[in-house]
Amino acid sequence: MTPLAAAVARAFGTPAVVVDLDVVESNIARVQALCDRAGLACRPHVKTHKSPELAQLQVAAGAKGITCQKLGEAEVMADGGLDDILISYNILGERNLGRLGALMRRVKMTVAADSATTVDGLARAAAAGGRTLDVVVECDTGLKRAGVETPGEAVELARRIAATPGLAFAGLLLYPPPDRWPETQAFFDAAQAGLRDAGLEPRIVSTGGSPNLKHLGALDGATEHRPGTYIFNDRMQVAAGVATLQDCAVSVYATVVSRAAPDRGIVDAGSKILTSDPGGLSGHGFVLDLPEARINALSEEHGFLDLSASAARPPIGEVVRIVPNHVCVVVNMVDRLVAVRGEAIVGEIAVAARGMSV
Amino acid sequence: MTPLAAAVARAFGTPAVVVDLDVVESNIARVQALCDRAGLACRPHVKTHKSPELAQLQVAAGAKGITCQKLGEAEVMADGGLDDILISYNILGERNLGRLGALMRRVKMTVAADSATTVDGLARAAAAGGRTLDVVVECDTGLKRAGVETPGEAVELARRIAATPGLAFAGLLLYPPPDRWPETQAFFDAAQAGLRDAGLEPRIVSTGGSPNLKHLGALDGATEHRPGTYIFNDRMQVAAGVATLQDCAVSVYATVVSRAAPDRGIVDAGSKILTSDPGGLSGHGFVLDLPEARINALSEEHGFLDLSASAARPPIGEVVRIVPNHVCVVVNMVDRLVAVRGEAIVGEIAVAARGMSV
Repeated sequence: MTPLAAAVARAFGTPAVVVDLDVVESNIARVQALCDRAGLACRPHVKTHKSPELAQLQVAAGAKGITCQKLGEAEVMADGGLDDILISYNILGERNLGRLGALMRRVKMTVAADSATTVDGLARAAAAGGRTLDVVVECDTGLKRAGVETPGEAVELARRIAATPGLAFAGLLLYPPPDRWPETQAFFDAAQAGLRDAGLEPRIVSTGGSPNLKHLGALDGATEHRPGTYIFNDRMQVAAGVATLQDCAVSVYATVVSRAAPDRGIVDAGSKILTSDPGGLSGHGFVLDLPEARINALSEEHGFLDLSASAARPPIGEVVRIVPNHVCVVVNMVDRLVAVRGEAIVGEIAVAARGMSV
Repeated sequence: MTPLAAAVARAFGTPAVVVDLDVVESNIARVQALCDRAGLACRPHVKTHKSPELAQLQVAAGAKGITCQKLGEAEVMADGGLDDILISYNILGERNLGRLGALMRRVKMTVAADSATTVDGLARAAAAGGRTLDVVVECDTGLKRAGVETPGEAVELARRIAATPGLAFAGLLLYPPPDRWPETQAFFDAAQAGLRDAGLEPRIVSTGGSPNLKHLGALDGATEHRPGTYIFNDRMQVAAGVATLQDCAVSVYATVVSRAAPDRGIVDAGSKILTSDPGGLSGHGFVLDLPEARINALSEEHGFLDLSASAARPPIGEVVRIVPNHVCVVVNMVDRLVAVRGEAIVGEIAVAARGMSV
């Protein structure tokens, strides 16, 4: 095992979620430069790191504000000094609308909506916030998640926003599936024409997704991009062709705790650290120290290590490093990350918005 | 939506993980009675609830101590007044052995081992703990997780434990796959014969698993059982035939936040609440209020609701109740549970050992 792995295990125990800040800084700089070259604002999604400290690094590098998925994340970020926040989510319910109003009094807020119900509620938040609330229309162009399904619906909702006291129509929020950029362009062009007819102009046309970094600038008319995972990267981003293993800033350090047979072992990272999110990949993470091994199953606190194809057979007590399939959900399992630079432990980073799904 | 669902959303927002304490108490009483009738001690696994408060309910109902998977859980339980703790896990590394020694000075500890490496380390913990440490040999009878694979290895390890100063051989720890009880009996009988030849007697013969409740007493020679999930139950236990939906004490309350098309919707419970653990089942939870609907995909904060087969089509803002596939990993996502009895909110329960995987 590496001296760093031994040192992390000694100081923090395992499983430990370890982030290399040199790699983080390199990832932030690279993607900011990509956005700059494409003429797009970068508005990173903090769901990946949930840390105001890391969000501040992104803003210092040139990001124009941040994106949050939930109010709880936005509250933590506002507490941490972030002052330009887009919530890319339909906010509903009197409790949440009151929270949004309170946030509006502290920082610049923009929120998404895909229904009249959401828009009507947002008016009450704006009244509580005491100023105009910027609202973007969430559009679906194939993901079939949230978002209006047609350009006509987008225009209709934009009109409703513009006509609602306290709200301002700010633009369009998109998350194009990586293989549907032409369809997304057609959707956008039709919506744009309809908006012009209505006398409305989108100030923000926002695209999302780290896997979409390879299509950056592909939407004619886009003004900003919301990448999340790029700050850490993971096996999914490597598989998507937007990162290499060397760009993966986060790995899970785990100890081999059992070797009951020559061709298999158990590590102390199970689904309560690596999560069961397969990310569309085979195996539950890539073991950097055992490239021919495979984590072929998880129980809650056990990772099942298949060593049948591996020449290396780690002894009990060995600490191995695992690049997770989907880093965003792994970081959300722990309250702090162990921060390193190269081979040195340099501190800890609080995952301050961990678990803030409300 | 039910008045309770509306009240929970108003008071706590959604997604909320809600536990009905009436059902919890009924589950605890039923399984304790099953163990009593089978002549087995009940040693509940706290990995499901991670709450000293709920562990105390189990002990008050007759449980003989508790089971933990990790030291961090055991420390929280000791802080909460639990005083007889089995850790069913190989404890390795000087940091952890020191923690175990410190725990031994506070409460009665028993730990598992499946290798000489683990046993040799435990001797150092016992020295730090200042008293004899009870050690059970973990045996694998088909799960292929941790545990020695043969009765001969079990006897050999028992001898090593008995011969190690500071350690006492306490017995055998088993987790029989639900379909391998005859093989488990054969393993146990052979190990038992070998132990007798060595002059060793297992005081503890411990079996595990809520799905194994239907086989309770099937192992001739068992002294205790370690059920975990039974306190809450979930879709997996219903599928395993050891619980009904009415026995499921925990559900996730989620709000319908988008209805972009007639046959589909989005709820605000994604993989950061329900987790991606499929539990071997189709769909990501059962929607009590929409029995014909299906949660067919998750992203981090979105649950994708397929309504194509559902006559009921919930409006935006509706709060629905979802029985999770695997409750243990869901509870581990949140810092507190909302406690209800029937239709009344009665308080909150801290998931005090949440995230204690180290």
